[in-house]
Amino acid sequence: MLGFISKKAVIRGVVSRGAVIYGPTEISEGCFVDDAVIGYPTRGRLMYVLEKSSDATEALDEVSLGAYLGPRCIVRSGCIIYEEVMMEDSVELGHGVLIRSGSVVRSGSRIGSFTQLDGKVLIGKNVNIQSNVYLPHLTKILDDAFLGPGVTMTNDLYPVASSLKGPTIGAKAIIGSRAVILPGVNIGEGAVVGAGSVVTRDVKPYTVVYGVPAREVYSREEYDRRKAMYELKEG
Amino acid sequence: MLGFISKKAVIRGVVSRGAVIYGPTEISEGCFVDDAVIGYPTRGRLMYVLEKSSDATEALDEVSLGAYLGPRCIVRSGCIIYEEVMMEDSVELGHGVLIRSGSVVRSGSRIGSFTQLDGKVLIGKNVNIQSNVYLPHLTKILDDAFLGPGVTMTNDLYPVASSLKGPTIGAKAIIGSRAVILPGVNIGEGAVVGAGSVVTRDVKPYTVVYGVPAREVYSREEYDRRKAMYELKEG
Amino acid sequence: MLGFISKKAVIRGVVSRGAVIYGPTEISEGCFVDDAVIGYPTRGRLMYVLEKSSDATEALDEVSLGAYLGPRCIVRSGCIIYEEVMMEDSVELGHGVLIRSGSVVRSGSRIGSFTQLDGKVLIGKNVNIQSNVYLPHLTKILDDAFLGPGVTMTNDLYPVASSLKGPTIGAKAIIGSRAVILPGVNIGEGAVVGAGSVVTRDVKPYTVVYGVPAREVYSREEYDRRKAMYELKEG
Repeated sequence: MLGFISKKAVIRGVVSRGAVIYGPTEISEGCFVDDAVIGYPTRGRLMYVLEKSSDATEALDEVSLGAYLGPRCIVRSGCIIYEEVMMEDSVELGHGVLIRSGSVVRSGSRIGSFTQLDGKVLIGKNVNIQSNVYLPHLTKILDDAFLGPGVTMTNDLYPVASSLKGPTIGAKAIIGSRAVILPGVNIGEGAVVGAGSVVTRDVKPYTVVYGVPAREVYSREEYDRRKAMYELKEG
Repeated sequence: MLGFISKKAVIRGVVSRGAVIYGPTEISEGCFVDDAVIGYPTRGRLMYVLEKSSDATEALDEVSLGAYLGPRCIVRSGCIIYEEVMMEDSVELGHGVLIRSGSVVRSGSRIGSFTQLDGKVLIGKNVNIQSNVYLPHLTKILDDAFLGPGVTMTNDLYPVASSLKGPTIGAKAIIGSRAVILPGVNIGEGAVVGAGSVVTRDVKPYTVVYGVPAREVYSREEYDRRKAMYELKEG
Repeated sequence: MLGFISKKAVIRGVVSRGAVIYGPTEISEGCFVDDAVIGYPTRGRLMYVLEKSSDATEALDEVSLGAYLGPRCIVRSGCIIYEEVMMEDSVELGHGVLIRSGSVVRSGSRIGSFTQLDGKVLIGKNVNIQSNVYLPHLTKILDDAFLGPGVTMTNDLYPVASSLKGPTIGAKAIIGSRAVILPGVNIGEGAVVGAGSVVTRDVKPYTVVYGVPAREVYSREEYDRRKAMYELKEG
């Protein structure tokens, strides 16, 4: 990236020299944007670029609808934020995070390096998403949920189907590392999914599931009891 | 990336300002290449660079054998395409796709963000590869196959062995998200592998397998029947 | 990245035009650093940047403590190496490798593309780490170990817990593709973990485990015998 800031952009935060900011993007006060791309146009708009221009950078800027970053967001190097993405205040991204058009990330959420929000994805408040997570179009992650590294969610039960259904992860749910969540599955509020599990059915609130396919093993209450004992022992 | 276009390159498409194009790379008409690296030299050539030059960019350009992009290809920002890669027409890449030297991608195939073709990999026509897929040296994916997000294939049965064997995925096969395919495994034409499965043996054409390790569960015919019913129900 | 070399940096190797080198980073003789970021400051230092400066690049450089690359290291494009990372001699990185502050990579080790060392991670000598591997804070990988593509390790048994425990992988151990290693698990010297396994308990030295959860299936001696037969047969 050569560094480019659109004349249409409103920049109130600090932006690195190599950042590429397309279209009427708004970067609020207290933000830090490193060498990242913000306001990248969607595919249809790319095609429009191809037909009419020989300067791709100018053309991408011309067609971009821009993105919005609320106050005090951190966007590290290598991130790519599409147009029509809305980040509320105090959102923090690792490196190389990819967020497609139409996604919303609510205040205080953190997203780890190389994680993808690959379509219209809703991330609630204070969600903690680790690295290498894949969230397809129509995924919803509610407030205070935790997603471990490498979690993969899916939206197409019979690829390539005409109807896509994103999973919904309830508030305060915990999804262990590398778990796979099948299309349209609802993980209940406060539920826990063990690392490496493949979740093929809905999970009831405040239950713990594990395995391939995932089965109920105990309750969230029991999980919290074990956690407290572990923390006591480990100091 | 600072933006660099080799004097040896032939550029007929639209190239972004930050793109880095090494060696006698050919970019055909109707292509769009964003801030990506094309024609990157292999390791042996890198070593040659180290010994003779203090300007790495010039030296990488001097030794590069170039890559070939057919008409109407799309290469998004962050992609790295090595020298001696051949992409036919209408190939579309997401962001951060890595394609190593010797790979061939045939016409109409799409490859999702952060997917790696890590050696000589053959991708047939109209293949649909989602994000975060890992395909090692000697993998073959035949026409019209579908690979879900996070699929990982392997080529080394007893690491680190002297003999590598890539998997072969038959035409029209469907590989579910996060599935692992062991070295040298043949997935038959039209076969289906369930999400999260670990496939340790060959899969017969038009069968559906699932689990760790994957076992046959029903036929492709039954899969297509279920899919049709699902699509009817979901509208 | 626009290309930036700190006045405080000591550069004895070859550096590409788009490389970004922050702070008192030392790049030893025989190194090749492509369009990568070296010496990136940690989060606390980023915050300091936000409060005092409008030129992020200058500010990141001012606060950076720098990194150290020993002789003959190769750092490919897209890598991000934080401050206080120490790489001994002849370390080789693929593209897009992320190494966080406090990590040490000892001589002769190789790390594949888009692999993350996400915290203080110790990599021994001549370790072979493939692509897309995730190693969290406090992970230790001892000499001559092999990690297949997509291996994910974890450090938080009950997320989000107050006490983190990284796994330890013994010398000469082999971890198959996409395996998941749970927090604090010790994989013994020379042990082998099958592809796609989820390892929930310690693994004894020179044993082979497989499955979800992983169980002992045979000995390393038997593995080596099978490997020798396979290599004889496959030529």
